[in-house]
Formats: sequence, structure tokens, C-alpha cells
Amino acid sequence: MKILYMILLALPLFTLPTLAQNNLLIFQSDFGSKDGAVSAMKGVAMSVSPELKIFDLTHEIPPYNVWEAAYRLVQTVPYWPPGTVFVSVCDPGVGTDRKSVVLRTRSGHLLVSPDNGTLTLVAEALGIDQVYEIDEARHRRANSEQSYTFHGRDVYAYTGAKLAAALVSLEQVGPRLPDVVVEIAYQKPEFQNGIISGNIPILDVQYGNVWTSIPKALFDRLNVKPGEQILVEIYQGNNRHFQGDVPYTQTFGEVGIGKELAYFNSLLYFSLALNQDNFAQKYHIESGPSWHIKIKKP
Amino acid sequence: MKILYMILLALPLFTLPTLAQNNLLIFQSDFGSKDGAVSAMKGVAMSVSPELKIFDLTHEIPPYNVWEAAYRLVQTVPYWPPGTVFVSVCDPGVGTDRKSVVLRTRSGHLLVSPDNGTLTLVAEALGIDQVYEIDEARHRRANSEQSYTFHGRDVYAYTGAKLAAALVSLEQVGPRLPDVVVEIAYQKPEFQNGIISGNIPILDVQYGNVWTSIPKALFDRLNVKPGEQILVEIYQGNNRHFQGDVPYTQTFGEVGIGKELAYFNSLLYFSLALNQDNFAQKYHIESGPSWHIKIKKP
Amino acid sequence: MKILYMILLALPLFTLPTLAQNNLLIFQSDFGSKDGAVSAMKGVAMSVSPELKIFDLTHEIPPYNVWEAAYRLVQTVPYWPPGTVFVSVCDPGVGTDRKSVVLRTRSGHLLVSPDNGTLTLVAEALGIDQVYEIDEARHRRANSEQSYTFHGRDVYAYTGAKLAAALVSLEQVGPRLPDVVVEIAYQKPEFQNGIISGNIPILDVQYGNVWTSIPKALFDRLNVKPGEQILVEIYQGNNRHFQGDVPYTQTFGEVGIGKELAYFNSLLYFSLALNQDNFAQKYHIESGPSWHIKIKKP
Repeated sequence: MKILYMILLALPLFTLPTLAQNNLLIFQSDFGSKDGAVSAMKGVAMSVSPELKIFDLTHEIPPYNVWEAAYRLVQTVPYWPPGTVFVSVCDPGVGTDRKSVVLRTRSGHLLVSPDNGTLTLVAEALGIDQVYEIDEARHRRANSEQSYTFHGRDVYAYTGAKLAAALVSLEQVGPRLPDVVVEIAYQKPEFQNGIISGNIPILDVQYGNVWTSIPKALFDRLNVKPGEQILVEIYQGNNRHFQGDVPYTQTFGEVGIGKELAYFNSLLYFSLALNQDNFAQKYHIESGPSWHIKIKKP
Repeated sequence: MKILYMILLALPLFTLPTLAQNNLLIFQSDFGSKDGAVSAMKGVAMSVSPELKIFDLTHEIPPYNVWEAAYRLVQTVPYWPPGTVFVSVCDPGVGTDRKSVVLRTRSGHLLVSPDNGTLTLVAEALGIDQVYEIDEARHRRANSEQSYTFHGRDVYAYTGAKLAAALVSLEQVGPRLPDVVVEIAYQKPEFQNGIISGNIPILDVQYGNVWTSIPKALFDRLNVKPGEQILVEIYQGNNRHFQGDVPYTQTFGEVGIGKELAYFNSLLYFSLALNQDNFAQKYHIESGPSWHIKIKKP
Repeated sequence: MKILYMILLALPLFTLPTLAQNNLLIFQSDFGSKDGAVSAMKGVAMSVSPELKIFDLTHEIPPYNVWEAAYRLVQTVPYWPPGTVFVSVCDPGVGTDRKSVVLRTRSGHLLVSPDNGTLTLVAEALGIDQVYEIDEARHRRANSEQSYTFHGRDVYAYTGAKLAAALVSLEQVGPRLPDVVVEIAYQKPEFQNGIISGNIPILDVQYGNVWTSIPKALFDRLNVKPGEQILVEIYQGNNRHFQGDVPYTQTFGEVGIGKELAYFNSLLYFSLALNQDNFAQKYHIESGPSWHIKIKKP
């Protein structure tokens, strides 16, 4: 009896503090939700450990859009407990020599992904603690060697599940790499001569709101108070799609239905919307590296 | 040993009967599933308690469509165990003075929502036991005070998780309010001079079936037997979109493929369909308060 | 103490080996994700047992498309642990005399479905161990007798949950049937005079890749090596939609962006794609029994 008691007491000491995982496993992909690919990944994971708690980030990343995969991660990873494992499968270069890696951020989150730029933003925002390459010869679903194309199921879901369930440690997945990940180049926000420039990393697609890369701390250098106007210009390359004075508001309800407003989104970045209407659609705004925004006092 | 035994016996008495929650937390929103908003809400909830069992109702409520949010709740809440907590975020008035509330129904379900009409139908169908306002100053995710616009994540998911995990009691979320919620006005079904009138609260969008607000008990006053015909008229305002005799059937297979039929949906409301085809699309039927239906014996 | 110890030891012997279920319950349907139908099914299941671990396969089966329901099952069931229970609700004949059955495959998976062809491919691939008819009078949600049309919620989700939670055994759901299921006829792959024929059971819709029914073992009889060309012809009935020489590759990256390639998908069936583009859309290819493919050495 005493021995059983000691084992029970000892178990957490052995497993939890060393590995820090919490059985939380989150999937993201560009697979959509119409076929069985996502379910196959989850089946592999639950076969690894029935204790896992599995969630979806999204599977509606536009096919091959690594930038958007990167953005969705940085939008959500910080809200999950440290130790949570994310598996992201947006892999246009599957079968080429891109590496399969696990990134541990300084915040203690683990990300399993092809090292193809997907980790750009989360590495920037949360910091790189360690990067490991997955040894695919050792860490793959049994009998999956003949399958060339479904790394998501056979390597990433399998390895992510092992990590989340603390059945392997980070050090065991393969060789440690230098503390860098492949990064997508993109224009950073800047303040110059009273003008703030930035880009449009993503749209809030459901509502048609335009989210920019301009953080609140930078915006504050304009000394614009709630209720005051801002002159906003949006370009794709050299083509101007929008120019106008827009009020800086704290709630959508401060302007009439269908009217423009500027606000800070839930990540505290400068954003544009129409109250109960679709700003992006009305002005034909899209997102990505070719889209720029300039804001200043009128 | 005896002490352990007593603790084991005592635990349920302390936690379950007082709070009645069961760790079940269900999310509904108009966020769609393309971005990370839903995942961020779930991350906040799992950070509150890893014991939660989280499910989605739907996140495909059309943006700002409070009526449809209300309908989806009444369609599903009764099928979950009492004590289940629902978080519904369809919030066109975010930032205005609409209140954030928790409704406990007489059936023992808890609903966390802006008090903007979302609770209309569930309050009617399941009854109001108690209503509390969420004290947002005390019940919000740590460090979220700067974020103006994501109540779903910072207040509703956080408070819903605390309630579902029984970490706070209903009485602790804030001041008790009168036993009423904001209600959306809509036309009630009625029987007059041999004619039953009703409205079309929702379409069965996946199949194009038309669901009405006419319950079976009211329909039975027409004394129509299975296999007999009903004269059906559907209007938007004064414009008639459909008129015809339709057989009342118990199964879709009783009419030919593509033929009209009347039946009772799984909530036992009078409904119209084409067998293996799309009634709403064929006759341009939509749903909402401006849509009426009249039925009688031919 | 000794008694408690014996009970703890004895419990798994009583429940697990006899019933083999593992609390895993997977739902598939053609309901879509816009309304509350899926959530109502899950609520019924969680009311049966809070220990269930519930997942979705997909709810985006095109309405009434039993063939696609069959395909999604065979694509995913093998990746879940034996004992997992699948509930599939694609039921164009609801209310007719099609039977409600539970199939146990030789692999130990349980499938709850109308016996309308949905089980065709999983029965072929995994083998039939036993088939039982659900006695709907005994195995249905309490107070659901008045509801004619939602077998998914009232019978299938309810019975699937009871099975997954090991609250009933397979033998208890109803009478045993002969070891057959209703099968959809479809053209099998064949090799004749140096030509392999097959059909197109499904598209990889998210990417527009064309998946065929030709397994790798059959393809190997052509003696085509990676890098070599294959002459491919795709027909709908007598109409040829595609003819061309396509390289057999092991990775998409081996051809230029937008170029054709032949590969084996993750289920090891012969498939066609454009690198980072949409083959099916470009050549107007669809799937189903009327679509044929022929491949041979050029």
C-alpha cells in the first residue's frame, strides 16, 4: 500500500515538471472541413493517447497560404496555457527539402510545423526558446513509410500527440537546430514625419473589417483622442483604394450604421470598419504584403 | 482510510448540489470558422479549467443576426443536460450600453450572452429562473482591460468557463436583475375561422426546407390526417410567394422526388419541403419577421 | 482496503474486455454546420454519458450523397482505435423501410447508420464481423416517439452514445442480421492488355486533386518508375475530359507550379494534381460512378 502511495505521489513529479505538457493538442490546416483528413489526424492522435484534449484552431486557411497560417497562430497561441501543443499543416512544399520542426517559444508553447514561414509571426511575438528537427524515420505512425504526401497525419499529428501526452520529450524528437525559423519578409510599421505606415496582414473576413500591423503604442504617437478624425489612405502597390477622414472610436455604436470608423481590434492593432457593414468589400480591400496603409492627423 | 472515505463521500455534496454545473461549456457566435477568434475563446476557457468539456453549437450565425442566434439556442439547449453553460456571442451593439447577463432557465441551463434579444426564445420556451448582470470589472480575463471589442473572449468565455467549472456561483457573477430579458417582437401563431397563421422563423438551410412557428398542437385543430391535402400560402408582407395544395406526410418518401410535402420537423413544428430538393430556393422563400404563412383545409 | 483494491482491479475486467468500447464517438452527417442539428445530437450523447469523447468526421457531406458518406468513412475509420463508434447520418430514405443498423467490422470498429449503402466501402475494406438492427422501440431518446424525422438525434446519436459508453452491448441493440450490408454498385479497377481502368470515387475538393480507385499494387503492374511519364485519359461516360502524358512523381515540388503530376495519395491510390493549382477545376473533372480513367505507358 505504501509503495502504491509513493508511486501516486511520485508520478506528477516525474512527468509534469520535466515535460510541462498538458494533454492539449490544437490543429490548424488548409484542409477544409469537407473531407476526412482532419478526422484521420485526430484518430492518429487519439490512438497515441486517449487522454488528449483535442481542439481546432481553423482548417480554413486558404490552400498553400503560409502567411495566413502564420497569422492565425499568433492570433491565438497566446490565449492557450503554456505547454499546449499546436500542429499546423500548411505545406505547399511537402516532399521538398523543407524541414519538419518543433518550436518551443519562450512562453512555453510548442508548435509542430513544416519550417516554411508558418512560424514567422509566433517566433517574433513569443520568442524562440528552442527549435528541434523531427527525425521522421523514428517519429512517424507505424506502417506509414509508403505514404509520401500526408505528413500532417503520419508525422505531425503523431509527433504532436506524443509531445502533448508527454510520451516523448522535446529533446527526443530529433536533433536540435539553431534558434531560428524560416521567416516571411514583410513590411514593418514605422512612424516618420507625422505619418504612420503599415501593412494589412489580414482581414477580419467574417465582418469585412480591415486589420493593420500598426500597434496601439505606435498610433499613440499621433496624439489622436477618441472621437477625433484620422486621415487614412490604403494602397495596393501604387493604386489608392481608399482615402478619407475616419473617426477614432472606442465602440462601433458611436457612428451611424454603414459609416466608417477606426478602432483597435482585440489584439490592439489599428483597424477599420463600417458599423454593421463590410468595409473591405465596399472599398475592394484585400490583405497581404502588397497592401499598405498610411495614417496621419488631417 | 476512514477519513479518505469521508472526503470522497463529501466531495459531491460540497460541489455538485450547490452549483449544479457539469463542466460542459457550449459556444455559439457569428464569428465563422475561418479565423482564430473561436480558438482564442476556447484557449481562455481551458486556461480557466482543464476539466472543461467544450463543444460548438455553431459559429455560422449570419453576422449581427440576433434573431437567428436566438433560434439556434432554443433549437438545441433542451437536448443538453441541466447545468450546461452556453456562451452566445452575437453582439452588434458591443460597446453600447447593452448589458452582459447570465440567464438561468427553469430547466437549469445557464446562458451567457449580451442581453440584446438573443435570449428571447430560450426564455420563452424554458422559462426564466434568474437573471444576473456580469460585473465586467471583476469578471474578465487578466490584463484584458485595454481591449475594447472582444467581449466574447475576455468576458463571456472567461465567465462562462468559471461558471461551467463551478469556480464561481451564479450569485457571484454580479448583481441580480429582474426576471426579464430583452425580447425581439415577432408574430405568434394563431387559429381563426379555420385558418392557422404563423411566421417563418428559420429555414432548414442545408436542405432548403421551410420551418414555421406553427406547433403540432395548433395544427391538430385543423383535423387533417396523414395523407390528406392542406392549402398553403406563403407571403412576404403582401407578396405571395407560394400557393398550393400540399400533402401532409409522415415521411419524405411518401411523395415523388422533387414533389412538395408538409411534415413536422424534429422540434414538432409545421414545415414544408421538396423530397430530395430545395423548397426555399425553388419558391424564393426566406425567413424572418416579414414572412407569413397561412394554412387551411382546401 | 483489500475490498476496494479488488474492486478497482476487477472493474476493467468486467467492463472493458467484454464490450471493448473506449468512449470515443465520432459523428458524420450531411447536416452542415450552420444550424443546431449537430449540437442537438451531441447534447443527447453527453446526456447519455459525460465520459464520452466526441469528435466530428465531417458534416459537409453533400445532402443525400450516400456515396460520399461511404467514402469519408473508409477514408478515416482505420485511423481510429478499435472500439471507436461512428454515427453516420446521411439518410435520404428516412421514414421508408430502410433499416437502422450497427455494423461491427473485423477491425473492431462500430458503425451506426441507416443501411442504405453508407456502409459499402467500410464493409469491403475492413470486413464485416457482425450486423445488428437497432430496435427503435427500445433504443431511442426518452419522449422522442412523436418525432418522425430526426433519427440522427433520437435513435442514432442515442444508440451510438450507449454503445461508446459501454452502457449497452452490441447484442443488446436489437436482432442480429445476416453478415451483409446494402452495397452501392461501382466499377472496380482492372488491368487488361497493358491498360489499367478505374473510376473517380472522390475529388480532393480543397485542392482540386483527382483521386482514383486504382491502388498502388495494381499500378505497379505497369512498371512505371518515378520520373517517367504515364498516358492518362479521363472520361465521363463517352466524353473525354482529359488526355495527356503526366509524370509520375513522389513530391509535388518535382514539377513546375501549375503543371500536371501523378502521385499516390495518403491512402495510396493513384491521383492527379496540378502543383499549387486545381486540376479538377481546370479540366472540369467531377467524381461518381459515371467517371472513368484509363492509364498506360505512352
